[in-house]
Amino acid sequence: MTALRSVTSVDTRLREVVPDAAFRDLEPRYLEEPRGRYAGRDGRVIAPASTEEVAAIINVAADAHIPVVPYGGGTGLVGGQIAPDGIAPIILSLERMTQIREVFPLENAMVVEAGAILADVQAAAAEAGRLFPLSLASEGSARIGGLLSTNAGGINTLRYGNARDQVLGLEAVLPDGTIWNGLTRLRKNNTGYDLRHLLIGAEGTLGVITAAALRLQPRPVEEGTAFFVVPSPEAALDLLALAGERLGGGVQAFELIGRMGLAFLRETMPEVRLPFEEAPDWVVLIDLGLPAGQSQEAVLEGLFEAAVAAGIVSDGVIAQSEAQRAEFWAVRESIPEANRRIGSVSSHDISVPLGAIPDFIRRGDEAIARIGEFRINCFGHVGDGNLHYNVFPVPGRSRADHEAERALVKRAVHDLVDEMGGSVSAEHGIGRLKVEDLERYGDPGKLMAMRAIKAALDPAGIMNPGAVLREV
Amino acid sequence: MTALRSVTSVDTRLREVVPDAAFRDLEPRYLEEPRGRYAGRDGRVIAPASTEEVAAIINVAADAHIPVVPYGGGTGLVGGQIAPDGIAPIILSLERMTQIREVFPLENAMVVEAGAILADVQAAAAEAGRLFPLSLASEGSARIGGLLSTNAGGINTLRYGNARDQVLGLEAVLPDGTIWNGLTRLRKNNTGYDLRHLLIGAEGTLGVITAAALRLQPRPVEEGTAFFVVPSPEAALDLLALAGERLGGGVQAFELIGRMGLAFLRETMPEVRLPFEEAPDWVVLIDLGLPAGQSQEAVLEGLFEAAVAAGIVSDGVIAQSEAQRAEFWAVRESIPEANRRIGSVSSHDISVPLGAIPDFIRRGDEAIARIGEFRINCFGHVGDGNLHYNVFPVPGRSRADHEAERALVKRAVHDLVDEMGGSVSAEHGIGRLKVEDLERYGDPGKLMAMRAIKAALDPAGIMNPGAVLREV
Repeated sequence: MTALRSVTSVDTRLREVVPDAAFRDLEPRYLEEPRGRYAGRDGRVIAPASTEEVAAIINVAADAHIPVVPYGGGTGLVGGQIAPDGIAPIILSLERMTQIREVFPLENAMVVEAGAILADVQAAAAEAGRLFPLSLASEGSARIGGLLSTNAGGINTLRYGNARDQVLGLEAVLPDGTIWNGLTRLRKNNTGYDLRHLLIGAEGTLGVITAAALRLQPRPVEEGTAFFVVPSPEAALDLLALAGERLGGGVQAFELIGRMGLAFLRETMPEVRLPFEEAPDWVVLIDLGLPAGQSQEAVLEGLFEAAVAAGIVSDGVIAQSEAQRAEFWAVRESIPEANRRIGSVSSHDISVPLGAIPDFIRRGDEAIARIGEFRINCFGHVGDGNLHYNVFPVPGRSRADHEAERALVKRAVHDLVDEMGGSVSAEHGIGRLKVEDLERYGDPGKLMAMRAIKAALDPAGIMNPGAVLREV
Repeated sequence: MTALRSVTSVDTRLREVVPDAAFRDLEPRYLEEPRGRYAGRDGRVIAPASTEEVAAIINVAADAHIPVVPYGGGTGLVGGQIAPDGIAPIILSLERMTQIREVFPLENAMVVEAGAILADVQAAAAEAGRLFPLSLASEGSARIGGLLSTNAGGINTLRYGNARDQVLGLEAVLPDGTIWNGLTRLRKNNTGYDLRHLLIGAEGTLGVITAAALRLQPRPVEEGTAFFVVPSPEAALDLLALAGERLGGGVQAFELIGRMGLAFLRETMPEVRLPFEEAPDWVVLIDLGLPAGQSQEAVLEGLFEAAVAAGIVSDGVIAQSEAQRAEFWAVRESIPEANRRIGSVSSHDISVPLGAIPDFIRRGDEAIARIGEFRINCFGHVGDGNLHYNVFPVPGRSRADHEAERALVKRAVHDLVDEMGGSVSAEHGIGRLKVEDLERYGDPGKLMAMRAIKAALDPAGIMNPGAVLREV
């Protein structure tokens, strides 16, 4: 009886503080995540329309010790948006807080609500003649609040940094329902601890981001894209350094693709046009954004000639039109879909220090070969040291045939990453999927400090419990 | 007797955990700060040679509840490095931890100890063909640990960001003596709360930074500098936007100087060559760093012509040599010395949103005029919204004549800054000087969270007590 009365009372109180329009049916999408590893069972979906409503909901939750799971676009890959067990949570969806509050072209800044979809933010920046550089596969549905809470990466981080680097200020509701108004557009502001960077990447465990002041960039005046064939990952790194020396910050993306990635495309997505007849061992997709007064074609040709002279590039092709640029990028962006069609045994979002990449690739191959016969598709944002290192069955076998080895493969890759000073979650975050990895590989001092901060800011443990840190 | 025994025992224990070479005499420099507002009275100066020694010292201090004041180059301007009262602290000087541990040119990264002097770090980067872009007046004596603990700004933040933006990873000793090894060189690493950004800017109140993995940049291939005369601060902002659109990230610095600044130079430092016969109302110093294939002179000429056509620039002069570039920069960099010679009534390190700068300058003048007759020298990093807004006596009067009005002037400036969404400490930090300002102008939710974090990580309150947050 007591439990039942308490549940009723929470619902009554929620109905008192937020209008009916905020309450949503518990549709399946709120209980699912893209990789199907986690499923929510129950919950109250509430979609507040304002920061004050978010605060009111968190207040009720804090009083009643009801968990709150913030929900953005639902595109997270580590289960941070799903509570598979425990007390039925409030699923706090930001879907109604989508306003682009204001754009400041002169200041290269804009203020948006946490529910704004990334593609809409990009479009609003473009309309003002500016660039919002965060860009990733799920940009059509991912929302700013989730992107910041997970410190999303993507393809432009080499030049512009991760999600956290795009943020001037934040507005958030802290775990006791207090609104923190840190929505400054200031470039310099040294007034106390940086709560902004603490909430960014905290995956909703320290509060709910409700709005952000974002940094915009000038739009590049000219852009260009090329594929350069390199003999090895070492040569790819030399090419990256050479490009940096010649072009400064002009290199926007620098993606490494191996022979296996191209073979997967040919096998599963024959409609994707490949730039080379014969698939090379390694190819780099290089993308430039240049200021006025430079020709991208001349710059790419100059880089190609210098790289050939240095013996680090053997072949290359420069996109001749925007359509061809899109075609080149389609090669890179189709690889995750090709991977899905093949069906990986285990996939890993890892990073290592740039200089360690070649050694990691070599030692990774050896470690996996010791476990069994697999195909490895290693590709990704090599300019950031961020590789998607994915392990697949050989032809004729399926991922189901390797159930028993999956944990071994993951452990071998993560152990190697850790040994080489890398990260077992480069851009996707910890969520619920990597809590154990964080415990195993995380620095003990950092974990201690994280737990102390979590307990200090969220003593009742209501904010996204079980994500990032194990529930205590 | 008890107190005496306890003191003896702390010294004994310190002697046990760190070798004799670490103990320093209590020289005056450890008790002074550049502006002479704070003076230390007592303390034990210890200069450990390793992170382990730092940890051992903090351990003893934590057990004995002895305050620890981390001491870098001693150049801080807000008293963060001086404990003027309370229990005699351990003054923990990083002066012996000056090693540049390793440079990774291919990765654009280097690892340095916290006591490394900024100029030495810059030089080590240059030797490897790279740029460490943090640059400020005290770079010959400021140490990396202090620069990061205060999130120092400087002249290149427009292009490269503040000190925190130069940091890939940190090593630090937490307030209980635990070593946090977060010295990663990774570009992407989403594994839990970002302790790095929490310690950066915490001014030694949450631990001692002992080493940092720093981000390096490619060196610009060509650099250029010009003075452009603008009719107003509004026009300066328009020029900044125009330069951004034409040049992308190529603008390294964009400094505004007013007629008063030039007059002060003429009055107190006639040896500084001024670029214009007749001092204009407002002049912008613009500094470019360009990749290969662009001529800085052509780019500056193009910008000048476009700006004149747009009616936002009336005159200009482009440096014709490196010597002349240095001469142009000497104008900007001599202004703080000229200010010292005049003697300010009150000086303010403030920032406002870029778009608010013209309005702030106008309203600031009005607010000060209501208090009395003063001269205002407003100059600084307008590209970052960071103005040094300094108020001086009129000729014939001295700062001593205005003792009674100093607090009024400061309050008027800070109130206006706050009203306009700005910061009362743009780049110098809070230290001990601005604790009250932080309490007055800081967001209450942020202050609450800061106090909770401080109490959680430093329950004994030993780390730099009285800095940033009032002692409880």
